[in-house]
Amino acid sequence: MIGVGLIGGSFAIDIKKKYPEVVIHGISRKEATLKKALELNIIDKKATLEDLINADLVIVSIPVDATVKLLPTILDKISDHTLVVDAGSTKEAICKAVEHHPKRRNFLACHPIAGTEKSGPSAAIAGLYVGKTNIICEVEKTTFKLQEKALQLFTDIGMRIRYMDPVSHDKHIAYVSHLSHISAFMLGKTVINKEKNERDIFDMAGSGFASTVRLAKSSPAMWTPIFKQNKENVVETLEEYINNLQHFKELMQQDNFSEIFNEMENTNYIKQILNGIN
Amino acid sequence: MIGVGLIGGSFAIDIKKKYPEVVIHGISRKEATLKKALELNIIDKKATLEDLINADLVIVSIPVDATVKLLPTILDKISDHTLVVDAGSTKEAICKAVEHHPKRRNFLACHPIAGTEKSGPSAAIAGLYVGKTNIICEVEKTTFKLQEKALQLFTDIGMRIRYMDPVSHDKHIAYVSHLSHISAFMLGKTVINKEKNERDIFDMAGSGFASTVRLAKSSPAMWTPIFKQNKENVVETLEEYINNLQHFKELMQQDNFSEIFNEMENTNYIKQILNGIN
Repeated sequence: MIGVGLIGGSFAIDIKKKYPEVVIHGISRKEATLKKALELNIIDKKATLEDLINADLVIVSIPVDATVKLLPTILDKISDHTLVVDAGSTKEAICKAVEHHPKRRNFLACHPIAGTEKSGPSAAIAGLYVGKTNIICEVEKTTFKLQEKALQLFTDIGMRIRYMDPVSHDKHIAYVSHLSHISAFMLGKTVINKEKNERDIFDMAGSGFASTVRLAKSSPAMWTPIFKQNKENVVETLEEYINNLQHFKELMQQDNFSEIFNEMENTNYIKQILNGIN
Repeated sequence: MIGVGLIGGSFAIDIKKKYPEVVIHGISRKEATLKKALELNIIDKKATLEDLINADLVIVSIPVDATVKLLPTILDKISDHTLVVDAGSTKEAICKAVEHHPKRRNFLACHPIAGTEKSGPSAAIAGLYVGKTNIICEVEKTTFKLQEKALQLFTDIGMRIRYMDPVSHDKHIAYVSHLSHISAFMLGKTVINKEKNERDIFDMAGSGFASTVRLAKSSPAMWTPIFKQNKENVVETLEEYINNLQHFKELMQQDNFSEIFNEMENTNYIKQILNGIN
């Protein structure tokens, strides 16, 4: 496990449960994180990149800028039979970083759509991936045998698989994931700026506010490089979102409340779409 | 109960549990809603406004435009000892509608901060109000004896009480509640517009998107009059929200990702604020 936080740690917990004979080695930039992961029995042993030669499976779950930098080195150091999968929220830059690598066929580009607003080893939980989607990109570039191995693992821990090219992945994920994070962060900022001197006000906040702003608790260290790598798509979604908000505001200023009603009614359609998402 | 949907129905369920001897009469504009509430045992009997003369307590939980219109008539028809409470998400227009009414002292203006994105009698649930805040406005305008009666009821079903003037209520609730709804509706609209022809895309949406967009399932019939009555405050929150999003977008376009990091880190402070809200 390169990265033993929420994503890597949750993989480790489910892998151990499913395959008790597996020995999990953890690698992390921070000694304290590794120590915590050991304490929590998420990993069995500490390791370094020099130990990769002995690994059967390497799961890379670190911020996407670190993945882009480190992935070529990881492929340099593994054996011929090692499978490397990542878990990054962007796919184009990561796939590009290793497109000409001699061991490209040992790598499977993945994005498990799972997680919470928390981070670190103590946020790792059992069963995080049950019923969740794993998006696999450029599957044809991975050795068939290693594809099979990965699919077996993902199926064993309860995931369903979708295939997609990296460019489409990054375009669509900007809408259904990256934009939600910015929307939540800026909602949190707007309310904090207004109410920071009036803590009592937050007694007025209910579960609706808590739900809408939840993602504003997410890790800036994880999300900054995601926005950087997916800049073009994210800026596009932000422009559309701002235009829609601006239009809603103008309808209000024009007292056009029948159109305000329509705006909301048309969006209620989201109910059908959200069926099946927790 | 005038209005037997999520809010009124949930009051009815908890009142019956706490005071089994109470007989609950339901009044609704729609016959089908009343029938449903009877079927679900939320109310014991159907009633009309002419029956108000016999009521000890009247809970008004209908859209805020209907409350403004109907509240004077309700006060006209009650007896001298009847307590009337409302549950509207705006308070200034509602308080104003009855400020000179001869029975103003029989009315207590309330906003229970509780609810879900669902609506109608079948959305009513037991225990909705446990641990939730009830904001009471202009408490001094209500007869002391009826204040006491209301407080006893709210305490019995688990609510905590906050006092506030209607103008402050409407200003702050715009930030911590009304803005979240618009943010969610416009997020839903942005994503639906982009992805409506690609239903598969929603397989990519995870729990983060579902959480952020949840309020976009809310009832337009309930929310349109709220936005109308609180127009000035809501437009102000929207302007600040749009400015913050615009600034975030510009930072991205300028590749100023260290400032993007700071924007998110400063907003992480919301973690502390959200402690205690479910």
